[in-house]
Amino acid sequence: MSIASLSSIQESPSRSYPLVSRQSHPNDTVVTVGAARFGGGHFAVIAGPCAVESREQILETAHGVREAGAQMLRGGAYKPRTSPYDFQGLGEGGLELLALAREETGLPIVTEVMDSEDISLVARYADMIQIGTRSMSSFRLLQKVAQTGKPVLLKRGMQASIREWLLSAEYLLANGNDRVVLCERGIRTHDSEFLRNTFDLSAIALGHLETHLPIIADPSHGTGRADLVPTMSLAAVAAGADGLILEVHHNPAEALCDGRQSLSPATFTELCSRLSAYVDLEGKQWSPFCLAG
Amino acid sequence: MSIASLSSIQESPSRSYPLVSRQSHPNDTVVTVGAARFGGGHFAVIAGPCAVESREQILETAHGVREAGAQMLRGGAYKPRTSPYDFQGLGEGGLELLALAREETGLPIVTEVMDSEDISLVARYADMIQIGTRSMSSFRLLQKVAQTGKPVLLKRGMQASIREWLLSAEYLLANGNDRVVLCERGIRTHDSEFLRNTFDLSAIALGHLETHLPIIADPSHGTGRADLVPTMSLAAVAAGADGLILEVHHNPAEALCDGRQSLSPATFTELCSRLSAYVDLEGKQWSPFCLAG
Amino acid sequence: MSIASLSSIQESPSRSYPLVSRQSHPNDTVVTVGAARFGGGHFAVIAGPCAVESREQILETAHGVREAGAQMLRGGAYKPRTSPYDFQGLGEGGLELLALAREETGLPIVTEVMDSEDISLVARYADMIQIGTRSMSSFRLLQKVAQTGKPVLLKRGMQASIREWLLSAEYLLANGNDRVVLCERGIRTHDSEFLRNTFDLSAIALGHLETHLPIIADPSHGTGRADLVPTMSLAAVAAGADGLILEVHHNPAEALCDGRQSLSPATFTELCSRLSAYVDLEGKQWSPFCLAG
Amino acid sequence: MSIASLSSIQESPSRSYPLVSRQSHPNDTVVTVGAARFGGGHFAVIAGPCAVESREQILETAHGVREAGAQMLRGGAYKPRTSPYDFQGLGEGGLELLALAREETGLPIVTEVMDSEDISLVARYADMIQIGTRSMSSFRLLQKVAQTGKPVLLKRGMQASIREWLLSAEYLLANGNDRVVLCERGIRTHDSEFLRNTFDLSAIALGHLETHLPIIADPSHGTGRADLVPTMSLAAVAAGADGLILEVHHNPAEALCDGRQSLSPATFTELCSRLSAYVDLEGKQWSPFCLAG
Repeated sequence: MSIASLSSIQESPSRSYPLVSRQSHPNDTVVTVGAARFGGGHFAVIAGPCAVESREQILETAHGVREAGAQMLRGGAYKPRTSPYDFQGLGEGGLELLALAREETGLPIVTEVMDSEDISLVARYADMIQIGTRSMSSFRLLQKVAQTGKPVLLKRGMQASIREWLLSAEYLLANGNDRVVLCERGIRTHDSEFLRNTFDLSAIALGHLETHLPIIADPSHGTGRADLVPTMSLAAVAAGADGLILEVHHNPAEALCDGRQSLSPATFTELCSRLSAYVDLEGKQWSPFCLAG
Repeated sequence: MSIASLSSIQESPSRSYPLVSRQSHPNDTVVTVGAARFGGGHFAVIAGPCAVESREQILETAHGVREAGAQMLRGGAYKPRTSPYDFQGLGEGGLELLALAREETGLPIVTEVMDSEDISLVARYADMIQIGTRSMSSFRLLQKVAQTGKPVLLKRGMQASIREWLLSAEYLLANGNDRVVLCERGIRTHDSEFLRNTFDLSAIALGHLETHLPIIADPSHGTGRADLVPTMSLAAVAAGADGLILEVHHNPAEALCDGRQSLSPATFTELCSRLSAYVDLEGKQWSPFCLAG
Repeated sequence: MSIASLSSIQESPSRSYPLVSRQSHPNDTVVTVGAARFGGGHFAVIAGPCAVESREQILETAHGVREAGAQMLRGGAYKPRTSPYDFQGLGEGGLELLALAREETGLPIVTEVMDSEDISLVARYADMIQIGTRSMSSFRLLQKVAQTGKPVLLKRGMQASIREWLLSAEYLLANGNDRVVLCERGIRTHDSEFLRNTFDLSAIALGHLETHLPIIADPSHGTGRADLVPTMSLAAVAAGADGLILEVHHNPAEALCDGRQSLSPATFTELCSRLSAYVDLEGKQWSPFCLAG
Repeated sequence: MSIASLSSIQESPSRSYPLVSRQSHPNDTVVTVGAARFGGGHFAVIAGPCAVESREQILETAHGVREAGAQMLRGGAYKPRTSPYDFQGLGEGGLELLALAREETGLPIVTEVMDSEDISLVARYADMIQIGTRSMSSFRLLQKVAQTGKPVLLKRGMQASIREWLLSAEYLLANGNDRVVLCERGIRTHDSEFLRNTFDLSAIALGHLETHLPIIADPSHGTGRADLVPTMSLAAVAAGADGLILEVHHNPAEALCDGRQSLSPATFTELCSRLSAYVDLEGKQWSPFCLAG
């Protein structure tokens, strides 16, 4: 169905998301990336550093998270930073290191694209492309990322409403790509003294009513604090999350970004072992040690 | 220690909460109201209608929630309503009906006080006094409610910061009352299209680091939707809640307030049976059927 | 018309404000307090300290603001403070000092009531009673303050919507008091790094479409910074404010509260002289020096 | 000075904006685009439709705003729309129509670029490039737009802090372009029932303390209502705005976007004549009829 005809059949076309809606597609969509499966009763964990910093860092962290039970590796090569004087990522060098880590561990990789002109480069390396919180409303970027055919991880904008988030997903599906995983990562509210963001777990429960797409949670950004990530990971599972994306760094105290919210591999390992019981209680399938065998 | 001397020993006296802080009191405080115990590994459920409406309504609901596993009954006799033309509660008549329901079911009751001049009346009937979200910063009300010696349920202000919430609890403790249970009930944010409030479950996890007081969750107001209350109740438990307060009405479609977010007794019963496994996983004690035997 | 009958004639009674609405009362309401007139083309300025601190402080400030052009004196005897360890006001002693300042300067006084049990005391001293931002939704307090018959200054709740603010005014009118002046004082948003609140001047322009009641602005709380108060006072006038309420302290550096946002009498004098041209441009009447002659 | 060396001399490099700061550049920067001058005591008005829709529409509106007193024409060729099914702009066809309108009226044009791959095309047509509210944190887009050397209109992100806005401007200056005009356009808050955004005029007054760059206001998006645009335009001038950007459509009722907040040419003309007195009172230079002679 063309976009034009979809538009004409909607009563209020500017506000609805026919392709994303569960009304038009009652069954859960399952998105598969390597050994990771999201949705339809499947659960998976993505872990890794905020930014790729060095060969040693990404390899050590990748091995650590794989052993603990992650199915995918995350890591930023292009980093959106509020200040022009902050570390902006290693660019293509970072992508190469991610590919090396994949080769060594077998973990598929997800990494962010910030700019249209980087899409083809990023798509050559990544198994899944992340649209970051600041890009959720970069609609032409969405269109072009959709057209790569790669699975997409769509983070909720920090100031976006749930409807706007679903409409951004609609941009992806309307451009021919339904391999979309939504990610709740906290919203900006009046209170950020103790917590970086307000982690909106109800958006996951509500999201499952509204859409057939899988929804995962990012408690690292959702809270901004490593000491709260384990508890809020369990809460996210209980709220219905189909997976987690977690910042893990082999040495959080030395991280070039987001160290305060990064788990060490040891803490991540401990979290994975607690997590299993909650995933089981939800009746979902997770194979935390499937790659370690 | 007098308030004056506490003030003088604080570096920034306006921002700290010495009595509420876990630093000054490392062990969990347990608050007991009848058979309900909150904190220190104990878990309890408070249930009942938004407002007391009639003899039949409160008795039928009270019996229903007692059988399902609640340890306490909630119900408003004085209702803060945005419009002067909305139902404002039955006043003392409502308190009498709550007392009758307690007599019939054995459930202790919690009800809100909105105004200083009602405190002595409410304290004669209630086993626990609720400070509502709109009154969290009514500081003289806090002082006077503290002085009744009754246990207090302190709801978070809908746009209060976590620090302000803890400082309101400090008003209670500084006035000689440490039988305080905090309650997260959702905050007001930019997005209220699908959800009445943004349910800030991280505030519970963070709260347990900052204070020794028990913290419960109100998913009814936190989401505003009966269809999300069960899932978000489970998530609240996983986030560390020491109890839940839930709106239950024997006939939600006919409720004079908050019908959209009220569970039927049947749904509440089903939720209680699912809840047990999550409470167990947290290593907490809950006796859902303790009163039914 | 009784409240019950009003309720029955409204299509959505919980959301409308028949008495406050301009639809039911097309002409501007003018509220007069001594020499101060608000609304209907009249403009007045209220000035004075955050809190009454001492005889010297309130008298010196009162004389200063009277000479500069204020028509009313403000000053808190009961102060709502986030921490129980902060200065809470002088109570009745503060009211006596306000009365003394009125006697010496001729300026009528406005002061806040925080608690029902203080209303009759405050009403004995005050010419106008202020409902503070934290009390806008203390509905029983509103009812009782209305019943004193005194003019009321109703500040907008820091988290209130415009509709909720108008509905709180409806509580006053529905209880027989139409001598109500609304006051925009800034709302709480995601950004409070440079500015204490977000000063919502559009709420004044919008408010004039919705209601016949006068609306004034409080740039002291609206910005939280003395260096921005003059500019934002001019902007408030251009947005249609029918008056201003400004914090002025004879020695801001020594103020017990809100010193950072308080003007000195000299700065206040300079502001009044700039203000006249903007009030003129709006076609409003202000007699800044009427009392000085 | 290179970016690296700037970084090393900052105590907290991630949070400061050395090039944008008024501390490092005490005098106002003046940005000139054709006959329009912004800053340093100069005031100018940009007007035009939300989106370029047709030859007739843009020419008629351009003539109308020029006659009324605008110095620049606005109009979107690439429109960021929340839904993929809404009108997305005419693309290059829209740029051609803007160029035609410039040819006919002499008004320089400002138009938005949403995506890196459109920059060189847009830069061929536009006299000034707009970074829209959704792109304020698209940092690579900022870098590339800066490098065109064209003047840049940088709108504040709808939930950006003031600091983040200034840091985005720092990206432009750090990439060699200091022809930057900031634009306050309203922020997203808890209340959007009557007003599309909360128009943060204090950000203009505060901004003038923090930075030497000119700051203009967009009351069309700031309020979302044509009936409030005139009043809030005056308020913006009083708050210190160095110019205005206003949506004007020759037939608002038929506009393909933002019709509800668009002025007709007649209303715009009336506003310009009222505006002069306020600009004069600020001691600023505006030549509303300079092009009409």
